[in-house]
Amino acid sequence: MNYELNLKDYDRIIMGIDPGTNVMGYGVLGIIGKKAEVIVMGVIQLNRFETHYLRLGRIYERVSGLVQQYLPDELAIEAPFFGKNVQSMLKLGRAQGVAMAAALARDIPITEYPPLNVKKAVTGNGQASKEQVANMLKHLLSIPEEKMPDALDATDALAVALCHMYESQKPAIAKGPKSWKDFLAKNPDRIAPRLK
Amino acid sequence: MNYELNLKDYDRIIMGIDPGTNVMGYGVLGIIGKKAEVIVMGVIQLNRFETHYLRLGRIYERVSGLVQQYLPDELAIEAPFFGKNVQSMLKLGRAQGVAMAAALARDIPITEYPPLNVKKAVTGNGQASKEQVANMLKHLLSIPEEKMPDALDATDALAVALCHMYESQKPAIAKGPKSWKDFLAKNPDRIAPRLK
Repeated sequence: MNYELNLKDYDRIIMGIDPGTNVMGYGVLGIIGKKAEVIVMGVIQLNRFETHYLRLGRIYERVSGLVQQYLPDELAIEAPFFGKNVQSMLKLGRAQGVAMAAALARDIPITEYPPLNVKKAVTGNGQASKEQVANMLKHLLSIPEEKMPDALDATDALAVALCHMYESQKPAIAKGPKSWKDFLAKNPDRIAPRLK
Repeated sequence: MNYELNLKDYDRIIMGIDPGTNVMGYGVLGIIGKKAEVIVMGVIQLNRFETHYLRLGRIYERVSGLVQQYLPDELAIEAPFFGKNVQSMLKLGRAQGVAMAAALARDIPITEYPPLNVKKAVTGNGQASKEQVANMLKHLLSIPEEKMPDALDATDALAVALCHMYESQKPAIAKGPKSWKDFLAKNPDRIAPRLK
């Protein structure tokens, strides 16, 4: 969506994917310093393919194409760990596996995030609706109204890319010291002189 | 295992895969007319890789390598449709998806067979043990004792390749007419003159 910068101008490029067996969303973020901007987002429609294999083939072809075109440094995937039944989880796993293979083929590291974590990272609320996620992204990434996609699978994919950026930019200290001993070791100036 | 023939001497090459998240078996059959012979079989050990992603990466790398080396015309996969829980089915689905992607990347058609059908096609018994399947393959494909693999995942993969060969060589008539009307249309000589 931003055509002013070349891909090489970004420090990092993160591709987010929201995999599904009917529609797969994707979103690519370009990062300069602590600022992120949308490079592209969209959906891969799978409904019109009759067989499961044609759908898997389409996912591989499109995700490979996106990887070649936007050269992401990292791939972030929204991955629910529990589904309704074993049959649908096997199909979802295959769709995820095929999308992951497109990244694995180029040694791109993959990180996955459960939907709750993605929503929480982006909106502060793990129970946020897809619409709330989309509105927050519009605000955070300054996306003009006319560039907002109709499909919420696209914004969901962008959300996982942004979640990954936040997670990877968290300073280690923000996670808190592991123990009191660890805290003291990291904060020698906070120890009273007589304890030193 | 047969080094006397070049790959181009075969009419068709079928690769069988028995996907798993710990060990993945593979077997490649070369077919000339109605005769099949083993080109290669083996296993991809995944246990030594610590993370799920490293395992998926290894599957993609090895299956892509096998596809490039043996140039199969078709891929047959042993695919159980139901597992113990959604979590293990998601992982199995990913392993299958990554293996399938290696074939999809080269437009190789994929067919999957449930374990029961594979065992039945090879041994005549859908409840046969892995050892029984291995022994039957040894006999059917004239595999010398010293070439039999220790890992039964390898023979399981070869079995799915052989099952696919049998299935694809079945004449259409063997499947029977779809209906009485269909039967009459296909067998005009079996209709009594007064009915014609």
